[in-house]
Amino acid sequence: MIPLAPGPEFDRIRRILSRLGRDARAIGDDCAIIPAAPGDLVVSTDLSIEGRHFRRDWLALEEIGWRAAAGALSDLAAEGAAAVGVTVSLGIPSSATDDDAATLMGGVADAVHAAGGVVLGGDLTAADCWLLDVTVIGRAGRPVTRRGAEPGDVLWVSGTLGGARAALMAWLGGRTPEPGSRRAFARPEPRIALGQALALEGARAMIDLSDGLGGDAAHLAAASGVHLDLGLDVLPLGSGVAAEAALAAQPPEVFAGQGGEDYELLVAMPPAFGRADAERLGALTGTPLTAIGTVAAGSGVTSRLAGRVVALPGFDHFR
Amino acid sequence: MIPLAPGPEFDRIRRILSRLGRDARAIGDDCAIIPAAPGDLVVSTDLSIEGRHFRRDWLALEEIGWRAAAGALSDLAAEGAAAVGVTVSLGIPSSATDDDAATLMGGVADAVHAAGGVVLGGDLTAADCWLLDVTVIGRAGRPVTRRGAEPGDVLWVSGTLGGARAALMAWLGGRTPEPGSRRAFARPEPRIALGQALALEGARAMIDLSDGLGGDAAHLAAASGVHLDLGLDVLPLGSGVAAEAALAAQPPEVFAGQGGEDYELLVAMPPAFGRADAERLGALTGTPLTAIGTVAAGSGVTSRLAGRVVALPGFDHFR
Repeated sequence: MIPLAPGPEFDRIRRILSRLGRDARAIGDDCAIIPAAPGDLVVSTDLSIEGRHFRRDWLALEEIGWRAAAGALSDLAAEGAAAVGVTVSLGIPSSATDDDAATLMGGVADAVHAAGGVVLGGDLTAADCWLLDVTVIGRAGRPVTRRGAEPGDVLWVSGTLGGARAALMAWLGGRTPEPGSRRAFARPEPRIALGQALALEGARAMIDLSDGLGGDAAHLAAASGVHLDLGLDVLPLGSGVAAEAALAAQPPEVFAGQGGEDYELLVAMPPAFGRADAERLGALTGTPLTAIGTVAAGSGVTSRLAGRVVALPGFDHFR
Repeated sequence: MIPLAPGPEFDRIRRILSRLGRDARAIGDDCAIIPAAPGDLVVSTDLSIEGRHFRRDWLALEEIGWRAAAGALSDLAAEGAAAVGVTVSLGIPSSATDDDAATLMGGVADAVHAAGGVVLGGDLTAADCWLLDVTVIGRAGRPVTRRGAEPGDVLWVSGTLGGARAALMAWLGGRTPEPGSRRAFARPEPRIALGQALALEGARAMIDLSDGLGGDAAHLAAASGVHLDLGLDVLPLGSGVAAEAALAAQPPEVFAGQGGEDYELLVAMPPAFGRADAERLGALTGTPLTAIGTVAAGSGVTSRLAGRVVALPGFDHFR
């Protein structure tokens, strides 16, 4: 770490850096330096505000940090990129101790480290509530955008869906979330390794499911200028979805397809990528892939369940 | 621009993008892509919150955007880097119109464009007050850190100091700032071209003056492991400083040396870099350089005015 001048502001930074350990080795200059290397850089940013994107009574500070970082890192996964690192701007309420800030940043660092990156730098300021803005930087030999899906491609989804929504609905209903769904909400796993593997296998277009399958499929369809057909009957359902869907009087597949913030990947693969390829990548990365639809000429998204067309509106984060 | 799905959240983004014009050509994917090119990448981030870093009754929305971006871009200047672009996370209060958000982002885009960069992407969310987090990305063949100053080096400062503090003190005292000092506060000019030129001329260590000369000199001394001697008699004074310093009953040089957020550069150059070199760079970049001190073995900073040692405490932004 670069020596900092004396002063209370810098004591606070020193305490955070000591929690980050080896993940913060270069912090303390005007800028963090990312040495030149082959590949394009990709960058994305994600702002989380207490009371709007998370609640202190639902999550521990370490989980708040992990979740904010994981949500941003998921955008790198959707680009088929490796994680280089993150910068974090942190707004700290006056009620928080310096240890609180270090604990939250520890959760950020854990998520970044698990994804193979480092904490590059950041900014601290006093604020009326906790807020975190995480900017992620990655590197990709061939970045995969939302734009390349072609008629005939097959749509695959990673992991399971709806778990984060099941936890959210439980909390909002005054219930204790089922442990698996709580984990899906509090410690989502950005699919960095899988995203890179899919890029290498020729992924045509990819997006992460932060707005929910319905909403994000609409983005991919709009960006690629194609129509998507989704078959919800085979949708892989997350932990706790069945019980919360029953309470919401929705089919579990619709409940899961409307759920935001699962941070799984939706990818359009060329038809040559088949079930055996999906199983190979699943074994390699530990994350299963399920074929849930096809790409056709046209526009928009059609979702079907048990032979009927169902609506799957996206989740509007702007509250 | 990449086509976005329908919906009110995306209408808001579309309106902002139309104000950004050609500066936002690639927005609309999970990540922005920065194509591979020679040189190291450098990155920094800067969070500004209404009521803490700026006030709506002092600045127009466009100025709030400009100033937030310029403050972040100034970190690139201090690294000797060219501007690639910025990502912006914007918190928007419920009282704001969509035009307000587009106006503020227009100020961001103007500052970024003037520095030679583009708006790469961002995030929007509702918030209790305006807040902006600007992450800047630049590229440098040889990044200049705070660490390389050596005994015998000469310290140079760009432009003039104290103007932003003069405006701030006027507002806090219920006075109308002198126009030049208001401009120094509202539309600071990041010294991107000068920073790159100084890097090419062999700059050993460099920092931008966001915490004020006293505070930032202490950072540079600590990072480089040296002692700095500053001669304040020759300090180039900003517009409006004399009058506000008189009201504050401070020598204008001390008033200016304590003032934060001037966003000028403090640089340690090898002794071979002389007055003629400084004049050449000043003519090339339009920003004058003044020799204000020297680097010696030891630690800490000593400031002298009229033969006496004076205190020059830094500005603690953490409020």
